[in-house]
Amino acid sequence: MIVRYTRPEMAEVWTNMARFSAMLEVELAVADVQAKRGLIPESAAKNLRKLAKIDVAEIEKIEVTTKHDVIAFVSQVAASVGEDGRFLHFGLTSSDVLDTALSLQVRRAAEVLDNSLGKFEAALIEVIKGHEHTLCAGRTHGMHAEPTSFGVKMAGHLTELRRSRRRFQRAVQQMQVGKLSGAVGTFSALGPEIEADVCTQLKLKAEPVATQVIPRDRHAELFCSMALLGGGIERLAIELRHLQRTEVGEVKEGFAKGQKGSSAMPHKRNPISAENLTGAARLLRGYLSPALEDMALWHERDISHSSVERVILPDAFILLDYAVDRMAKVLKNLEVDEERMRQNLDLSQGQLFSSHLLLALVQGGMTREAAYVVAQELSHSLKPGEHLKEKALGDARVQKHVKATEVEAIFSGESHRKNWSALVARALKDETGGWL
Amino acid sequence: MIVRYTRPEMAEVWTNMARFSAMLEVELAVADVQAKRGLIPESAAKNLRKLAKIDVAEIEKIEVTTKHDVIAFVSQVAASVGEDGRFLHFGLTSSDVLDTALSLQVRRAAEVLDNSLGKFEAALIEVIKGHEHTLCAGRTHGMHAEPTSFGVKMAGHLTELRRSRRRFQRAVQQMQVGKLSGAVGTFSALGPEIEADVCTQLKLKAEPVATQVIPRDRHAELFCSMALLGGGIERLAIELRHLQRTEVGEVKEGFAKGQKGSSAMPHKRNPISAENLTGAARLLRGYLSPALEDMALWHERDISHSSVERVILPDAFILLDYAVDRMAKVLKNLEVDEERMRQNLDLSQGQLFSSHLLLALVQGGMTREAAYVVAQELSHSLKPGEHLKEKALGDARVQKHVKATEVEAIFSGESHRKNWSALVARALKDETGGWL
Amino acid sequence: MIVRYTRPEMAEVWTNMARFSAMLEVELAVADVQAKRGLIPESAAKNLRKLAKIDVAEIEKIEVTTKHDVIAFVSQVAASVGEDGRFLHFGLTSSDVLDTALSLQVRRAAEVLDNSLGKFEAALIEVIKGHEHTLCAGRTHGMHAEPTSFGVKMAGHLTELRRSRRRFQRAVQQMQVGKLSGAVGTFSALGPEIEADVCTQLKLKAEPVATQVIPRDRHAELFCSMALLGGGIERLAIELRHLQRTEVGEVKEGFAKGQKGSSAMPHKRNPISAENLTGAARLLRGYLSPALEDMALWHERDISHSSVERVILPDAFILLDYAVDRMAKVLKNLEVDEERMRQNLDLSQGQLFSSHLLLALVQGGMTREAAYVVAQELSHSLKPGEHLKEKALGDARVQKHVKATEVEAIFSGESHRKNWSALVARALKDETGGWL
Amino acid sequence: MIVRYTRPEMAEVWTNMARFSAMLEVELAVADVQAKRGLIPESAAKNLRKLAKIDVAEIEKIEVTTKHDVIAFVSQVAASVGEDGRFLHFGLTSSDVLDTALSLQVRRAAEVLDNSLGKFEAALIEVIKGHEHTLCAGRTHGMHAEPTSFGVKMAGHLTELRRSRRRFQRAVQQMQVGKLSGAVGTFSALGPEIEADVCTQLKLKAEPVATQVIPRDRHAELFCSMALLGGGIERLAIELRHLQRTEVGEVKEGFAKGQKGSSAMPHKRNPISAENLTGAARLLRGYLSPALEDMALWHERDISHSSVERVILPDAFILLDYAVDRMAKVLKNLEVDEERMRQNLDLSQGQLFSSHLLLALVQGGMTREAAYVVAQELSHSLKPGEHLKEKALGDARVQKHVKATEVEAIFSGESHRKNWSALVARALKDETGGWL
Repeated sequence: MIVRYTRPEMAEVWTNMARFSAMLEVELAVADVQAKRGLIPESAAKNLRKLAKIDVAEIEKIEVTTKHDVIAFVSQVAASVGEDGRFLHFGLTSSDVLDTALSLQVRRAAEVLDNSLGKFEAALIEVIKGHEHTLCAGRTHGMHAEPTSFGVKMAGHLTELRRSRRRFQRAVQQMQVGKLSGAVGTFSALGPEIEADVCTQLKLKAEPVATQVIPRDRHAELFCSMALLGGGIERLAIELRHLQRTEVGEVKEGFAKGQKGSSAMPHKRNPISAENLTGAARLLRGYLSPALEDMALWHERDISHSSVERVILPDAFILLDYAVDRMAKVLKNLEVDEERMRQNLDLSQGQLFSSHLLLALVQGGMTREAAYVVAQELSHSLKPGEHLKEKALGDARVQKHVKATEVEAIFSGESHRKNWSALVARALKDETGGWL
Repeated sequence: MIVRYTRPEMAEVWTNMARFSAMLEVELAVADVQAKRGLIPESAAKNLRKLAKIDVAEIEKIEVTTKHDVIAFVSQVAASVGEDGRFLHFGLTSSDVLDTALSLQVRRAAEVLDNSLGKFEAALIEVIKGHEHTLCAGRTHGMHAEPTSFGVKMAGHLTELRRSRRRFQRAVQQMQVGKLSGAVGTFSALGPEIEADVCTQLKLKAEPVATQVIPRDRHAELFCSMALLGGGIERLAIELRHLQRTEVGEVKEGFAKGQKGSSAMPHKRNPISAENLTGAARLLRGYLSPALEDMALWHERDISHSSVERVILPDAFILLDYAVDRMAKVLKNLEVDEERMRQNLDLSQGQLFSSHLLLALVQGGMTREAAYVVAQELSHSLKPGEHLKEKALGDARVQKHVKATEVEAIFSGESHRKNWSALVARALKDETGGWL
Repeated sequence: MIVRYTRPEMAEVWTNMARFSAMLEVELAVADVQAKRGLIPESAAKNLRKLAKIDVAEIEKIEVTTKHDVIAFVSQVAASVGEDGRFLHFGLTSSDVLDTALSLQVRRAAEVLDNSLGKFEAALIEVIKGHEHTLCAGRTHGMHAEPTSFGVKMAGHLTELRRSRRRFQRAVQQMQVGKLSGAVGTFSALGPEIEADVCTQLKLKAEPVATQVIPRDRHAELFCSMALLGGGIERLAIELRHLQRTEVGEVKEGFAKGQKGSSAMPHKRNPISAENLTGAARLLRGYLSPALEDMALWHERDISHSSVERVILPDAFILLDYAVDRMAKVLKNLEVDEERMRQNLDLSQGQLFSSHLLLALVQGGMTREAAYVVAQELSHSLKPGEHLKEKALGDARVQKHVKATEVEAIFSGESHRKNWSALVARALKDETGGWL
Repeated sequence: MIVRYTRPEMAEVWTNMARFSAMLEVELAVADVQAKRGLIPESAAKNLRKLAKIDVAEIEKIEVTTKHDVIAFVSQVAASVGEDGRFLHFGLTSSDVLDTALSLQVRRAAEVLDNSLGKFEAALIEVIKGHEHTLCAGRTHGMHAEPTSFGVKMAGHLTELRRSRRRFQRAVQQMQVGKLSGAVGTFSALGPEIEADVCTQLKLKAEPVATQVIPRDRHAELFCSMALLGGGIERLAIELRHLQRTEVGEVKEGFAKGQKGSSAMPHKRNPISAENLTGAARLLRGYLSPALEDMALWHERDISHSSVERVILPDAFILLDYAVDRMAKVLKNLEVDEERMRQNLDLSQGQLFSSHLLLALVQGGMTREAAYVVAQELSHSLKPGEHLKEKALGDARVQKHVKATEVEAIFSGESHRKNWSALVARALKDETGGWL
């Protein structure tokens, strides 16, 4: 378990106690259903529910001998119940309990994480609303391209976040399956009706055809969705890191009173949260690779996935929850320097509008090729202090094809602004719905 | 492009000509819409459609100078049209065309691949139907566990295949987006209505908020779905490789007349297809990792994803299509040795039924712990030639708690058979629908 | 930190206390050298060494405010010293201390791990010595190929282990570098002579040209070497899992008194250690990917590698150490069933010798093509109970080209045995030395 | 094979003809040695060498029937020789030839690649020599930290390149092994002396203990070394991309006459080479993951590595060679804007020297904590147009502990310059040698 990057809400889901509790929840649901269907005495089911106690230390002690943690768990809990303890785990194989309980644990972890995702989404919406009209440079290849607004920029991140949040929700949903079909999935001990009733009680679907386990493509999809969420966080983190670099300076992560940026350089105020989150995305990609390798278990399953999942399931959930929560905080405390954004636009001396100059020249009758040469020449010959608008106004070829008022209009940036609100609205109302 | 593992149907999708054709399809759709909305002359749009020709060699020649392949493409095609060529690519940025065209190419590639998936699914269904009642050992940890049927085994693979096929279809669907919002996604040159009309014409959805490109989380999800399909193929391939090994010998890949298994060992007949497919799954996982790293492009995008996608998009589609097609053929030609399956069951001397002996002892009144010790002792003390049934019948503790007729029933395997048909039916009718 | 798979010897290296102790070791070495060179008072260096105390809880408390753990560490330790505390960390930047201390931590972790590797190697040597002449089937594609010995099989694993152990040792060695060149690696505060002296004292080499940090290609190589070690463990684990499967049954992992293999199936005795280790290899591959992504830090470094390394450095060392130690135990307790190995040879009815039949036919004057056809036909037409030797002796084509005594000799297996001892000797004396 | 990113020198190594030629080279060396040792007639060996011809089309035709390419190769070549053709491949198994020939192919590919690496190294050295004294900002976290020189910056890349080049050379060297030990590595057909002689002739070492194949840890190490080289290229590419961004503008990739940066925006001049190379590094990491998974082949080997290596070996070599060559060209044509570098230093208003102010305050008697607060306060309170030096000179606390002349000295940047030459010298003379 990744201690440093753990929020208590998520940590609780992955304790040994939480794991054994989920397992007990499954065992008791099975006993209830078995009692109802006359497979075990009603009194036994009642006693199990009443008396069963989990003693983690005792389980770990027994495991030293059995080298099998489910058997240790069943032994300890059965002993806590007394005579009726023998009806615990009746007709089950360990994986019936383990995998069904894991679905419950994942559900809880997903609730915590989805709650964090909601906060992230809300924080992003706030930024967008506050900056729908905040003019800034749009950059491709790291170079000024055309103007955009900071709100539009963030709106793109919102639509991606929503896509990936849905991917995650769907991945969780398809993992909400239970499995009680026994040693090799053939219901040789308990019939499908027990599984059906227990799954209903636990609000799970039954795995249609299992091996001894729930097939690991489901778990792998979950890790895909977490790597995709991580990739989205990284994209935003990298955006924020770029905007914070000294030469750009358009945003700042919050900097608390007493905070220090460097032991040697007192002036430092670094984008440490965004950098930290960049690393988190790498880890989440790293966890996906073993999850995918876990799919091809031998025959009705081997146990090689187990050592993997004991590590990556808690670690990925804990880390991603931390990352999402931290990104929400970064956004809440984000300082946006609108003045600097405006100043930076000037750094490219009007070149942000070269594309519209090109269009005007073509519309004015030049071939695309010739127009391109004109606009490129004017742009690339700019000396310090010069502005592309002036160069264009003074160029004979431009004068021939485009009116001066039109040139002025191009450089006013009006056409770049006109669809910002529409874009922000598209993002906010999430209108395309579902998947797109 | 992976030459060795290429089927011509898929290769066609990824030629330079196919790529430029998709790009031209987008350019012409834009011109149509622009003409309808009065942005360019109707005659220009008509001439573009009538006269535009793609000359790949010429494009490549121009690219040597421009170092920009879209500009080279536009130059060559515009030249082929003559004067109205200047209305080609009007108001567009390269990525508008590239990314929208890529969605079209992916659609075509997906059609080819989904067709192969359909053949794979059909082949699997045939095997299942033919082997619903083919008794064989179920194995966990590579060890005999309980009996199952070969049809049930394959039914599990069918349900996984269907899940992953749906994942793939959904991933393709969410990539069916077009984007014509210009240099930084703000519709500064062409309004959203152009994009909307063009997307309708091309049967795409419009990307709600783009940067210069369609965000790469969509492409990454596509690669996730291909890695998941690969993982499913690998699970089946590993199953088949295990069943073919000399000591198991339960199935055989087809072996053609004239085929040779080894240059040194003439007796060899190896599971080479299944092994080949195991390697394919590794490659597909390998392609996912750069696809995920492609997500975090700088600002309104950098171009680092381009060199990656030029390699992995064709390679992954070509390889996966080949793998799916090959697996379908393996299944069609699969030889199942039912006799050997039955013989192998005896290798574990009746231990496949130890779980039911345990249950009977518990139902007969023993504690779970005590019953386990009895069944484990009897199993682990079997000498060569002995059978667990005889040992059980002769054991005083068993005699005390379980009737001899009941012991006989346990080892008849009846209870292991009773739900095979139900499981196969669950798989075949795909009853859980959609996602689960 | 991976709690479940942790051995205390390795856990100790990665506690907070161990980390801060390594950092203090660096700080004090710097103070010593600075005192010797007259940069700080000799008495200050002495007082620092005498009075400095680490209080982890206090450091964590201060970090809440500073959000910078090195500053928190320096503050706490400086306070513990009193007035001369101001000479602590003099002229240093955090990364000077962090990275140099990390080299010390890695050295300690590597010592623990290399010790485990030594035990693994020794256990493998014991197995080899005990089974130099233990006849068993050699298998390619999972199919019987030619006979080999179990000792030779293990000798191959020994030579791989030694290669990868050397890779690891070399990767550790190239990480034994210190770095005190300050904020951007230019020695602006302390000169190279301080770094040189401190590195000598700490038995490190000085990084020739650093940024703020030691470049991360070094750390990435370390993770490469750990993934390679993991891959070797996996290869051996998979070999042992195959040999343990019911139908093969040639080896067994030890099974302790009281151990239980399955909650449902009392007969089960599973290769759980080998399976667990297979999963460990996946995790180690998974840790490599973020380590490689950590290399391309921005400019003189960003801090995105930090969140990654806080997780993967302890996790990879802890897991690999556990895996190596566990594999050594598996080998020590391995039960080899020589009788079963011999029996299994018969499963392929003499086909293990088809390659030598082919050679004899060619030497007897047949063309390679024709000889192949004969040997393949005889092999593939074997019915249950038949043996290739008898078929060969009775075949007219064979009779024409190979004498009966020669056929007998081929199937005696003599030529397969003759080089076993030489191969084992090659492995044991490690004669190729160094790298090959 | 990656067509787009292929240089002809490297492409030649990976054609079918080149592959079969390497195989023939091995076969002929074996025949020579066998003739010398009296295993086959001397005349046969001579005829083989004289008459053997490779006909790729014919081999591919035969493979359709045999489904085994080595057998097809042997059949075709043997037929080209006539009667003595039966001595071709005598006593060999396919993998003897394949793996030994692969070592030869890798050697040739490595020569081409190492030659490109030499050009990269030379280009880097030129840049370093030309910019040893070119002042520029050192940046950590993307923020100004302390001044450095552009030559020093590049010197760090040179030392990393040399490390990774050596890693690559060593990885190639440890792959320079041959293997002729037959079907399962036991020398059952040909004795170790044949392998020894052939390896000597081919300038290879003999694999000490092989399975049917050379163990794949060797190949995996090769891919590790290529991923590490890729990571170094990425680090440099990212540095150059940052320095080219509009707001920084310190360097420029060459821009050819006629080159165009964007179809929409004529002003664009983008760092496309550096971006392309960033993507290449991702692909190289992606190829490593299947290479590592290839290690754990079953028993004496399965063939799952083959489909993987057919793709990744040529693709990784071709791509890396292209990337290295392209980076060398980028460096050769790199335009460095020294004036802009100097201007950019001013953007942080003297804060680049805050670390030295801190040191001076501590040396002047302040506690570290107090001094830090002063320097941080002064830095963070700078208003536009202000300079830290003036703020410091005017601050009473500074005045109390540091003389004005000393403050002036701090901000002269002298101490930042004094070790540049030493650092560059360290890099150039490669003094630490070998590994460090």
